[in-house]
Amino acid sequence: MTLKHSRQAQASEDSLLRIFTVPEDETSTLSIIEKKLSEDLAGFLGDSIAALEKPLGLIEQDFLAHQIPSKPKYVSDYTDEIMQNLVAHSVHTAAPSFIGHMTSALPYFVLPLSKMMVGLNQNLVKIETSKAFTPLERQVLGMMHHLVYQNDQGFYKKLMHSADHSLGAMCSGGTVANISALWIARNRLFKADGDFKGINQQGLHRALKHYGYDDVAILVSERGHYSLGKAADLLGIGRESIISIPTDANNKVDVELMRQKAAELKANNTRVMAIVGVAGTTETGNVDPLAQLAQLAQEIDCHFHVDAAWGGASLLSNKYRHLLAGIELADSVTIDAHKQMYVPMGAGMVLFKDPELAQSIVHHAEYILRVGSKDLGSQTLEGSRPGMAMLVHACLQIIGRDGYEILIDNSLEKARYFAELIETNPDFELVTKPELCLLTYRYVPASIQPKLALAIERGDTQMVEQINHKLDLLTRFIQKHQREQGKSFVSRTRIKPAKYHRQVTTVFRVVLANPLTSQEILHQVLAEQAEIAKLDKQHLPALLKLIGEYQ
Amino acid sequence: MTLKHSRQAQASEDSLLRIFTVPEDETSTLSIIEKKLSEDLAGFLGDSIAALEKPLGLIEQDFLAHQIPSKPKYVSDYTDEIMQNLVAHSVHTAAPSFIGHMTSALPYFVLPLSKMMVGLNQNLVKIETSKAFTPLERQVLGMMHHLVYQNDQGFYKKLMHSADHSLGAMCSGGTVANISALWIARNRLFKADGDFKGINQQGLHRALKHYGYDDVAILVSERGHYSLGKAADLLGIGRESIISIPTDANNKVDVELMRQKAAELKANNTRVMAIVGVAGTTETGNVDPLAQLAQLAQEIDCHFHVDAAWGGASLLSNKYRHLLAGIELADSVTIDAHKQMYVPMGAGMVLFKDPELAQSIVHHAEYILRVGSKDLGSQTLEGSRPGMAMLVHACLQIIGRDGYEILIDNSLEKARYFAELIETNPDFELVTKPELCLLTYRYVPASIQPKLALAIERGDTQMVEQINHKLDLLTRFIQKHQREQGKSFVSRTRIKPAKYHRQVTTVFRVVLANPLTSQEILHQVLAEQAEIAKLDKQHLPALLKLIGEYQ
Repeated sequence: MTLKHSRQAQASEDSLLRIFTVPEDETSTLSIIEKKLSEDLAGFLGDSIAALEKPLGLIEQDFLAHQIPSKPKYVSDYTDEIMQNLVAHSVHTAAPSFIGHMTSALPYFVLPLSKMMVGLNQNLVKIETSKAFTPLERQVLGMMHHLVYQNDQGFYKKLMHSADHSLGAMCSGGTVANISALWIARNRLFKADGDFKGINQQGLHRALKHYGYDDVAILVSERGHYSLGKAADLLGIGRESIISIPTDANNKVDVELMRQKAAELKANNTRVMAIVGVAGTTETGNVDPLAQLAQLAQEIDCHFHVDAAWGGASLLSNKYRHLLAGIELADSVTIDAHKQMYVPMGAGMVLFKDPELAQSIVHHAEYILRVGSKDLGSQTLEGSRPGMAMLVHACLQIIGRDGYEILIDNSLEKARYFAELIETNPDFELVTKPELCLLTYRYVPASIQPKLALAIERGDTQMVEQINHKLDLLTRFIQKHQREQGKSFVSRTRIKPAKYHRQVTTVFRVVLANPLTSQEILHQVLAEQAEIAKLDKQHLPALLKLIGEYQ
Repeated sequence: MTLKHSRQAQASEDSLLRIFTVPEDETSTLSIIEKKLSEDLAGFLGDSIAALEKPLGLIEQDFLAHQIPSKPKYVSDYTDEIMQNLVAHSVHTAAPSFIGHMTSALPYFVLPLSKMMVGLNQNLVKIETSKAFTPLERQVLGMMHHLVYQNDQGFYKKLMHSADHSLGAMCSGGTVANISALWIARNRLFKADGDFKGINQQGLHRALKHYGYDDVAILVSERGHYSLGKAADLLGIGRESIISIPTDANNKVDVELMRQKAAELKANNTRVMAIVGVAGTTETGNVDPLAQLAQLAQEIDCHFHVDAAWGGASLLSNKYRHLLAGIELADSVTIDAHKQMYVPMGAGMVLFKDPELAQSIVHHAEYILRVGSKDLGSQTLEGSRPGMAMLVHACLQIIGRDGYEILIDNSLEKARYFAELIETNPDFELVTKPELCLLTYRYVPASIQPKLALAIERGDTQMVEQINHKLDLLTRFIQKHQREQGKSFVSRTRIKPAKYHRQVTTVFRVVLANPLTSQEILHQVLAEQAEIAKLDKQHLPALLKLIGEYQ
């Protein structure tokens, strides 16, 4: 190696080490880049459109290279590039007119706190890499547990920081939370007994054999989240063991039908391992009759889990908390703080009524998670994970119960306002009323509404089907164009409304969680949709033709 | 409601809405708080100690409240509080003397980028909430796939952005990555066949019955990560189906023993569903003979997974890549970018040799993940999840292959230097040599070393046990005190070294990933441990007494 080469190598090594040190002052290159990034981000977040209209295929052109580049790149060049290629074409989830999904605006203070959380780079799997973050996470779980179960002070004093108990578990999101709850339910049902060492040790086939069952099942509303099917697959019990129970006209599970199904399963020697209640269905936002489900779970002696991933935040409203009555009877509850609690993505949790519940999935290792340690990782599905609990902690303290009361109440009331707006607009039809802050609707031109009503009245199923099929295409057309125009965004889904004889129907779906969404914006969303409908030269004319001769 | 009350309510609502807007300029309160937070964080990160010495019990005192506070709190008050209660008592994972775990220093540029990532609040489950982040994540997976499998350009051009293929899946960490890989292995083995609809639909008990097996098994080194047991529990096959195969003197799995075990299992009608190779064991950092394992997997026709959660980053070194030879033969590979790739916590991934592998866990829903969509969520264990891929993307581009070459090479060579230091120090014993940048050792006073050697030579197992037992207590004493003093941190674990007849032995465990860890610091770590040993008034004197008369 020549001296020159060696000097060059040393220089590049030195500059590499420098990126691992904190910039010294405001005049350093990195400080200046950081400031500019912050301003650009503020500009993006301040923008009120929902998304720029650039087709995905074109965006992909900027992400075609498949080799990690050899040469290092300047931070400033990189940030310039991603502002153009990535940030400009990401989704304005914070825009007040982005009302299609559960991802919403964030309070600004979580941004600097996130930078701090990332900078501290704690790993919550064990105390050795998280120290004070561990008691903080336990406190967050304690507060959320209290929000749901409202035990007395002595309970929390004794158990919140106990090494042998968990009031819940943080995880990346509702899916992992639901999987964790059902994993626990399965393992508790098939626990060690006599010669049998437990399903955790010996597997499902031996568990069924030992306990003498032919099969297991999970009972849930047909509106249950898709993660439940995923959980059944993962847990080895199979998707067919998720037994879908029909809902009533309000999208709430029919408990009597569930009771009948449970009896049938029992007669077939199938053991129900859990009932899942939905507190805020993903598609219509309705809440199952939780107290009745709890009663049934007690009757048939099974685990009762409530999936309140989205709806759970409504417990923060004293005014509307009653909509989730019965949730305190659940053995476990899923809540996503990154939905209506305004915490950034990645803050899911599952809470346990009985602090010993998670013992059924406990695990240890030699170098961490030792028996008796307070390491949180011994009772979680995930291993290494970040200190997201800090952001939940910050929101709970800075917004407070009083703040959440206003935010939640406003959301629910805004949804009722929008529902009224839709109902009084002759060209729209409200398909499902908002129970929490989610509703579904569609565009049905005034000229068509009476004909559709007539067909229903006559029991002319064929005509209802024909009209609805064309309306489905129209709804898809409008939703797609609205998304591509980028001014506002509503999502779409397919549900089976009782009034359309359970025919699959495509609808707009709206979640009114963003505190900055004004009544004016809601008016604009409808006006925009009516305008887009006029652009449809295919489905709408066909629809008008179809009903033209229908008397 | 009085007018005054109503005005007050309006005022608190307005101030609440304000927290959802971006601060206007540098003179706003929030901007000032943000600046101060940034400075405080820089101060903390610049500090070179590993942790302050405050017992966990005392730290918990600041996290006792179990009720969500009613009144909102000023952001400034909150940040002051957590700087004292949380940040000051979190772990300096970035300190150059924190060499006990795989969590290390971060390049500073990821901090402002993280703030941006969090601010954009994308949800990678679907394109509607992530847009350009989806192609970015696919590109990151493509680049990492290429790092492992090195397919040609045509392959990536055709498949990287294809809706029907996945080159891998991002997830929160190695545990979820390993679970995902084994989930896929299980589902592919027990796929739909004739009347049987597949294990994903009908569960493990029906799968075994249909295919005519009594049981399933996973073969892995006794040094396999604890997440594999968790995976076996979760997947319903039970922890007993993880068959631990002994390792040789270098902590690498004995492939011949594994072959024998596979034959035995077959004779017992147990189907091996996967072989897991470890590329960087958590406790000793050794790499299994991957090519030989691949050969065996082919012989017995099973899935071959490599857990390179930690070691995978070494592929970025052209000089040392050969240490992982054979990894390209794996059906799936786990790599954690938040370990030696210097990305913040929460950036795990699993890569698939065959881009159709993940079809066996694919799932759809009505409102997202529709058939044919490019939504990433249709083939991941997790549902909603953040855009962490952006930080991996940034590191790959800004550090580049050349930068990683230096970082990885330096780490491995630093570990060799530290090993030499330990070997030449008469009071220490190197227990496992570094293959990558991880090693284990312990403090064994010079006066004791010849006696221990004598006992081994004589085959005096009882004496070896007695000495080692006391050394274990001494190692624990030193590690605990060093951690509590907070100047530096090494971890400890228990392994079964061949030279101690596989007796369980407690050792210090060191990971040399922090680029800022200097040779001087390594000298200090040993000096500090020798000093702490002198403080031990119990185990060390007992040890000296024990060997005093041993001739």
